[in-house]
Amino acid sequence: MDIDDEKRENLVTRLRRIEGQVRGLQRMVENDRYCGDVLDQIQSVHQALRSVGKVITRNHLETCVTDALRSGNEEAAEETYDEMMDLLYKKL
Amino acid sequence: MDIDDEKRENLVTRLRRIEGQVRGLQRMVENDRYCGDVLDQIQSVHQALRSVGKVITRNHLETCVTDALRSGNEEAAEETYDEMMDLLYKKL
Amino acid sequence: MDIDDEKRENLVTRLRRIEGQVRGLQRMVENDRYCGDVLDQIQSVHQALRSVGKVITRNHLETCVTDALRSGNEEAAEETYDEMMDLLYKKL
Amino acid sequence: MDIDDEKRENLVTRLRRIEGQVRGLQRMVENDRYCGDVLDQIQSVHQALRSVGKVITRNHLETCVTDALRSGNEEAAEETYDEMMDLLYKKL
Repeated sequence: MDIDDEKRENLVTRLRRIEGQVRGLQRMVENDRYCGDVLDQIQSVHQALRSVGKVITRNHLETCVTDALRSGNEEAAEETYDEMMDLLYKKL
Repeated sequence: MDIDDEKRENLVTRLRRIEGQVRGLQRMVENDRYCGDVLDQIQSVHQALRSVGKVITRNHLETCVTDALRSGNEEAAEETYDEMMDLLYKKL
Repeated sequence: MDIDDEKRENLVTRLRRIEGQVRGLQRMVENDRYCGDVLDQIQSVHQALRSVGKVITRNHLETCVTDALRSGNEEAAEETYDEMMDLLYKKL
Repeated sequence: MDIDDEKRENLVTRLRRIEGQVRGLQRMVENDRYCGDVLDQIQSVHQALRSVGKVITRNHLETCVTDALRSGNEEAAEETYDEMMDLLYKKL
């Protein structure tokens, strides 16, 4: 990842919070909390993870993808298109 | 959550594994791993979390949703429909 | 579909509009419109179709799903759970 | 759209088929077919539309996106990143 220090630090902080949310989920399951609440909390984790993914994706576009397409190397370009299609269509 | 012990234990085990995956993500970000790999790992966490959500949702249908609809209480039924629609359409 | 006449008529009207949108898409492609605009229009069709799906799903929950669960027939209940899970997780 | 004739023709053919599927949906609703079947058919339309979107997206990446990033125009690059993020995250 070709990313500046501030963004990287911010991502790590967010991932730590997500780790805490997942531990919270374990407790909710152990304590037999209402399924609806557990499912809501799962959605929150998906959302938080999605935000992290967004920052990384944007950074990826601005760095690796741009470099690959600007390199003029057609093989690198093809691989980049394949990867973008995967991101676009395999994504949850 | 009205769930049997075996399923609950299994869910907690899965959530612990997900917690480990999220810690792995932190290291990947700290070590500037290739964005594509980080994004793949994020997808794996989404997928693992989705599997947990599936087990809970199925259990929810079999217990709370069924009870609410069988109770004959129309208000409880309405709430259940609303909740199901949320699950169906707000979910990632 | 166990649906009242007004809702059914409304759904047919919406589906006719969607048919028109799809014809519009054909013209956009034939006229080499900007990909970004074509993709936006595709999204509009997905959204319109999703709204139709929502009305039908809600109706389905209120009628068939409720009847199946209230029937007390465990096989019918199992089928209903399977179908709900499909709706929840195979859905786009 | 900067697309070759064969691909364009193929897309139009697919869109005509989708138009037919939407007309089929109207009949299903008018004839009160089982909701589950109607919902399945809606999913088929989403899927078919998604395939069309995929072809256009790939073409878009190979042409407009690549050109914009290769132009060296930073404003055009920014707009392209924004558009890609929209495609990635607003899309159904």
